[in-house]
Amino acid sequence: MSSAARPIGVFDSGMGGLTVMRALIERLPNESFVYLGDTARLPYGSKSPDTVTRYAVQCASALGAYDIKLLVVACNTASSTALPALTAALDPIPVIGVIEPGAEAAVAAAPQGRIAVIATEGTVKGCAYARAIHARNPGARVVQQAAPLFVALAEEGLTEGPIAELVTRRYLEPVLAASRPEALVLGCTHFPALKSVIADVAGPEIALVDSAATTAAAVERLLAQRGLARSGPHEAPRFLATDAPERFARVGEIFLGAAIPADAVEQIDLQKL
Amino acid sequence: MSSAARPIGVFDSGMGGLTVMRALIERLPNESFVYLGDTARLPYGSKSPDTVTRYAVQCASALGAYDIKLLVVACNTASSTALPALTAALDPIPVIGVIEPGAEAAVAAAPQGRIAVIATEGTVKGCAYARAIHARNPGARVVQQAAPLFVALAEEGLTEGPIAELVTRRYLEPVLAASRPEALVLGCTHFPALKSVIADVAGPEIALVDSAATTAAAVERLLAQRGLARSGPHEAPRFLATDAPERFARVGEIFLGAAIPADAVEQIDLQKL
Repeated sequence: MSSAARPIGVFDSGMGGLTVMRALIERLPNESFVYLGDTARLPYGSKSPDTVTRYAVQCASALGAYDIKLLVVACNTASSTALPALTAALDPIPVIGVIEPGAEAAVAAAPQGRIAVIATEGTVKGCAYARAIHARNPGARVVQQAAPLFVALAEEGLTEGPIAELVTRRYLEPVLAASRPEALVLGCTHFPALKSVIADVAGPEIALVDSAATTAAAVERLLAQRGLARSGPHEAPRFLATDAPERFARVGEIFLGAAIPADAVEQIDLQKL
Repeated sequence: MSSAARPIGVFDSGMGGLTVMRALIERLPNESFVYLGDTARLPYGSKSPDTVTRYAVQCASALGAYDIKLLVVACNTASSTALPALTAALDPIPVIGVIEPGAEAAVAAAPQGRIAVIATEGTVKGCAYARAIHARNPGARVVQQAAPLFVALAEEGLTEGPIAELVTRRYLEPVLAASRPEALVLGCTHFPALKSVIADVAGPEIALVDSAATTAAAVERLLAQRGLARSGPHEAPRFLATDAPERFARVGEIFLGAAIPADAVEQIDLQKL
């Protein structure tokens, strides 16, 4: 297969990365995609950096076997922890995470440098967003808040109503009171599912930065730079899951915004690779 | 070491099983314990039966290396799915799960046989509680409800207040309206952390069945039957975690009801065994 005709690999700890996949499909309709969700070991957000890195490299190696031309790490926790290891493991295939594009969009949306980041416990502890933001604007004031319940709410499809609103207030009100941010980074692929209630609580003056769209734009630029953009018609996306393909299809719909037929999801065993 | 002097092994997908450990320590103060939390791969509740069984057997084998005299499966999902495989893997060491003791207590608390079970998605799908209850009372009417958000609430320590109450109402009100249960089984080791708000919503006429205490009673009977009860002073409990021992110690306190020094938790790698 010609270099440009090869698929783009996308992986996440589970189904949340399908929000990134959705943005990629919308922006790059000619491309083919292979998506891997490590559902046997999700979530990554509460696990240690060493464990996340080991799991992420196994995911990347599995996608490498599908002759991908580019890897998108559609998991904030893995992007914040494992990007150097993933880049080394896949070399020379380029690897793009969601942190740098998200940080770039946040800096653009916050002229005064007041930025809040909500994310998993692992991403908050790793401080990758704060580092990436400060690399672009050393004077930025970054406030981080772990929001682990958002993952459970999104996975249960409980993305509006009083429970979602109360949980959102619990996480956001201290952040809003402390820092009056101009931009709020949704630093976990699950969080865009709660975008509407987050926007209501945050108010109209705060720009919500969703790394899905900004990552898709970064992928488009990289493909163009390297002459890897596909021109012909795409193939249907392929879905791989390390466990429970039926649940992947059902819950995945919430994040992809489109039906996933249960028989379109193939189960693979990373430990046997 | 004499048979009776050997420790009791306890395992769970994470920290929730410490509610069972707590009941065991209270009821059996002379015994020594080794607890393993598979924090690198938690939660089990949303994973497939095959994957849960494979993980559970690895946990049991790791505890087998600590010369245990008895294994307590302090995870409802693993108890409902993997008990035959665990019993085979550890033979002749006896294995006790939390489902049978919980079902026994529920049947005793529900003379008319009206029983509700709240549990993880995996436990509900496996129907192990319903089977164990029907084996004791074939006329019982069992209503099951998956309550996955309870796990996230308990792990965040959000066990009271308006969010906990709204989530509890969301899960329990349809169950209460449908079946007017006499007994409500807390079919996940995380749920006793929410017992107070669950009791408020359920009302005083419904008996809450917490399998931790009933499992401890079953362990006491089995040790007595086999002459395995320890008489001398116990050793301090040992804690093993497959990832993030610091988080295990911090979150584990919520479930154990006692401090766990971070340096008392040893990290082990099940994949290297």
